[in-house]
Amino acid sequence: MKDALKALMIHGSHKSYKKRAYIIKAGAISNKVYYLKSGVVRHFVITRQGEEKTIRISQENDFFFSSIVSFFKREPSYIYCQCLTNVELVYWHSETLDELYEKNPELNEFRILKLTNFILEKHNKEIDLLTKSAFERFEAFCREHAKLFNRIPHHVIASYLDVTPETLSRMRSKLLKS
Amino acid sequence: MKDALKALMIHGSHKSYKKRAYIIKAGAISNKVYYLKSGVVRHFVITRQGEEKTIRISQENDFFFSSIVSFFKREPSYIYCQCLTNVELVYWHSETLDELYEKNPELNEFRILKLTNFILEKHNKEIDLLTKSAFERFEAFCREHAKLFNRIPHHVIASYLDVTPETLSRMRSKLLKS
Repeated sequence: MKDALKALMIHGSHKSYKKRAYIIKAGAISNKVYYLKSGVVRHFVITRQGEEKTIRISQENDFFFSSIVSFFKREPSYIYCQCLTNVELVYWHSETLDELYEKNPELNEFRILKLTNFILEKHNKEIDLLTKSAFERFEAFCREHAKLFNRIPHHVIASYLDVTPETLSRMRSKLLKS
Repeated sequence: MKDALKALMIHGSHKSYKKRAYIIKAGAISNKVYYLKSGVVRHFVITRQGEEKTIRISQENDFFFSSIVSFFKREPSYIYCQCLTNVELVYWHSETLDELYEKNPELNEFRILKLTNFILEKHNKEIDLLTKSAFERFEAFCREHAKLFNRIPHHVIASYLDVTPETLSRMRSKLLKS
């Protein structure tokens, strides 16, 4: 798989974004897959109430679609992707990927792994929201991503965890005291 | 791909379940993938409030994991899968699938398609809950699954759409009048 991954990386294009820049906004169409070399990106939608709701936070070494619906269906994105720090990306157009997959069938293993992990991530998020308390979700988030609190605005983390910024602040105090 | 699919089907085991029977309950571990030949299956979790929350409704020709977390991580399921009608299934153990994938690399195309569709389904459900009204979600559900109203209890559909049974009933009256 390592050689195939090397081939993937060699054929990617490189791009930098400044903090606060948008990789995609709702309404645009994207046929790119991204690899995050450095930085943090938030993926959000505007809710019916007009609020920004963060549905994913991508970090170093993450792969992501700027809009998965755009990518697979060529429909306008519902998603905004915004850089929360300066960001260094590698990206591939879908046509480039199709050619690479054709030439390197051993990349299939990697694709299947990434797709599976993405499903598990989405599935766990859905189940956690239904079965865990806000504090349990917050604790799990801290176990994996404690350093994010020093890198990105806390209201983004609150939105991702589906709590108000005030609740997040209270939970942090509680955790720091315990 | 057709020959590979035929190989997949030939190596599946067949099983019938009676209406109301459980394919898996929370706490159990499953390493099976299922294909639904006939019938309807609901996938639900018990929420923190002790309520049954339906997160998926599988129908004829659907593939599903009884518990995707169990399947990939060998952890106990959070999910209950219950038959809402008499059900005919084909299933495969993960070991059988691994062997089939090894022998039929052309099945990778099919796996990638199924995983991608599953991601799109989960993604769209997440976005729809944030950006669409209950009535818009209900209309979209009716466009694709109108016949389900004659096959399964309406409280299951209400749970899936994240509305109360009373709201679902009001929306149905509104749609039938218009």
